[in-house]
Amino acid sequence: MKDKLTLMIPGPTPVPETVLRAMGRHPIGHRSGAFQASVARTTAQLKWLHQTSNDVLVITGSGTAAMEAGIINTLSRGDRVLCGDNGKFGERWVNLCQAYGLAVETIKAAWGQPLDPSAFQAVLEADTEKRIRAVILTHSETSTGVINDLEAIAGHVRAHGRALTLVDCVTSLGATTVPVDAWGLDVVASGSQKGYMIPPGLSFVSMSARAWEAHGRSDLPKFYLDLGPYRKSAARNSNPFTPAVNLYFALETALEMMQAEGLEAIFARHARHRAAAQAGMKALGVNLFSAEGCGSPAITAVDPGCDAEALRQLVKNKYDILLAGGQDHLKGRIFRIGHLGFVCDRDVLTAVAAIEGALLEMGVACVEAGAGVAAAARALNA
Amino acid sequence: MKDKLTLMIPGPTPVPETVLRAMGRHPIGHRSGAFQASVARTTAQLKWLHQTSNDVLVITGSGTAAMEAGIINTLSRGDRVLCGDNGKFGERWVNLCQAYGLAVETIKAAWGQPLDPSAFQAVLEADTEKRIRAVILTHSETSTGVINDLEAIAGHVRAHGRALTLVDCVTSLGATTVPVDAWGLDVVASGSQKGYMIPPGLSFVSMSARAWEAHGRSDLPKFYLDLGPYRKSAARNSNPFTPAVNLYFALETALEMMQAEGLEAIFARHARHRAAAQAGMKALGVNLFSAEGCGSPAITAVDPGCDAEALRQLVKNKYDILLAGGQDHLKGRIFRIGHLGFVCDRDVLTAVAAIEGALLEMGVACVEAGAGVAAAARALNA
Repeated sequence: MKDKLTLMIPGPTPVPETVLRAMGRHPIGHRSGAFQASVARTTAQLKWLHQTSNDVLVITGSGTAAMEAGIINTLSRGDRVLCGDNGKFGERWVNLCQAYGLAVETIKAAWGQPLDPSAFQAVLEADTEKRIRAVILTHSETSTGVINDLEAIAGHVRAHGRALTLVDCVTSLGATTVPVDAWGLDVVASGSQKGYMIPPGLSFVSMSARAWEAHGRSDLPKFYLDLGPYRKSAARNSNPFTPAVNLYFALETALEMMQAEGLEAIFARHARHRAAAQAGMKALGVNLFSAEGCGSPAITAVDPGCDAEALRQLVKNKYDILLAGGQDHLKGRIFRIGHLGFVCDRDVLTAVAAIEGALLEMGVACVEAGAGVAAAARALNA
Repeated sequence: MKDKLTLMIPGPTPVPETVLRAMGRHPIGHRSGAFQASVARTTAQLKWLHQTSNDVLVITGSGTAAMEAGIINTLSRGDRVLCGDNGKFGERWVNLCQAYGLAVETIKAAWGQPLDPSAFQAVLEADTEKRIRAVILTHSETSTGVINDLEAIAGHVRAHGRALTLVDCVTSLGATTVPVDAWGLDVVASGSQKGYMIPPGLSFVSMSARAWEAHGRSDLPKFYLDLGPYRKSAARNSNPFTPAVNLYFALETALEMMQAEGLEAIFARHARHRAAAQAGMKALGVNLFSAEGCGSPAITAVDPGCDAEALRQLVKNKYDILLAGGQDHLKGRIFRIGHLGFVCDRDVLTAVAAIEGALLEMGVACVEAGAGVAAAARALNA
């Protein structure tokens, strides 16, 4: 049905009408007082979301631009870094570091498994000469629906004393707590089309005092993504280059909505949706792809034991719900339910109902009709 | 008056309601067939606008991101390049090249004067060993309202035979002809909030076959702005990273409007507005900042002989028109009338009328009331 498709993918996520309307205004001058006032307000809102007093800078670009900014602003050619890699976005960190000539050591876990904090601890403790300059990882691994234990890993980095913690929080920020100051996260990268509930086009980087010290030493070449000028401009509520003005309008409005809901309520909602999606899938007799106990609050990856792409097409065509497919070698094997951002209980319940209907139609489900929805509803009301 | 301010700055430029409405849709999945169809259409439209069969790639970022992409995708550390510099954006090219360790030779002209093509010819002809790898310049120098003779300079580069031509066409594309193939322009960078008539957030890079050959040799580090993956994705009407989906909606709609108007009509409109703005200012007895005969079709810079910022504030507060101020050392000395993109005859006439009124109120005008508007109207009807 035209214009009825609902997004339940990990980005772009659904956007509130209020936000779309704010975005649809005529643009204003990016050097005007009115725009500077908007930048001042969003900067305060962003610090609230990041639970930090660090700088949080806004880049016009995708989440990858923010990840790259984190690397090239804090590291130098040949620096030794430790990367966590348990999915496509962990791989991206490794590729990014290699593109800039860093000496990358990788701690891997199989796709669907979480990174093991004790593996980080062992390498960091063995580094008595303090040669590791950064520990780099993905908090919520979007490709597999796994949340990594960032708090524990960041604790080991703090104990090391020398390395910085650089984290991709693209699908965790706004879905679960990311207390930047409490956990000592030096660089946190995120993107607008996720928990922020606005369309793609803006990305965000928080930088700690230690990250700025490293910026002063960094010799990697940069210009558009050099955060130095962003910091200087931010001090007068401005940007070094013309920003996506209309996405700023959207951002301010979305963050107002998030502040009205409150951080704890937002995190509880995402946790409830994860519980409902997981309970629904288990009741249908299909397997979760992520290991027990480490499912992301933003996305539930499912291994249905049938052609996942055929199921996804059926859910799209018959129920007007867009689920995400598997990436790389998981294409056709898994599908992913996005429950990130502007998602309500009804959305999760209908997604489970649609998947249930599609599994029944495909002759896959091992249980009776209604079991998935019943389990999801119980989880929502728990 | 609230919400009545009209933008007559060189970006963001005014956006048609049709485009704002297209942009205000709910986002769709960036890997969906519907989005790929949109990418296919906009790619064809972009080639039409660039008058080229070269690749034209879309980056989520500002015009500076596109400029940087041009540099880092075609050059290598230590490469010798020749930069034209006659304003703030010429300076930006120089800074960008230096940030990447290129050996920059500069051909300068005073702010307000055009670059001298024969100066390029002399340096290029003297380079018998063909060590110059690129000639880099700004077509329309936004800071001074000067258009450089790109056709002549590009001709000298072609005669050299080895160097590439890299051009910032941020405020010329969509305002005057930029026949990429006919002039042999290897890299052309532009930005969405200009002639494209959409809000900021997208930028564009066209790459010739010779530019792609250079890409294969380039050793400058890059990731988000590496155009290789963009080219690969573009072949299947996709993007390597999540693009600003809603700005794509705006882009497609704006380019449809431009195609309906036609390139020749668009260029004639901008030339007419330049003539009207120039005639109006001259009739008011104030000086144009750009040298005679080289005013940009996108922007008219004016040296009013009084406090330009006070005049700009008066025009803003009393007439609800936002003019641009001077940049760097020109702040307070000049103001700039943007007539780029979605600008009609009425807009130019009212801008001249407002400036006339403000000059009279400030006691600056040397001529009788009505002279500016009369001259502008004559030019519009010539």
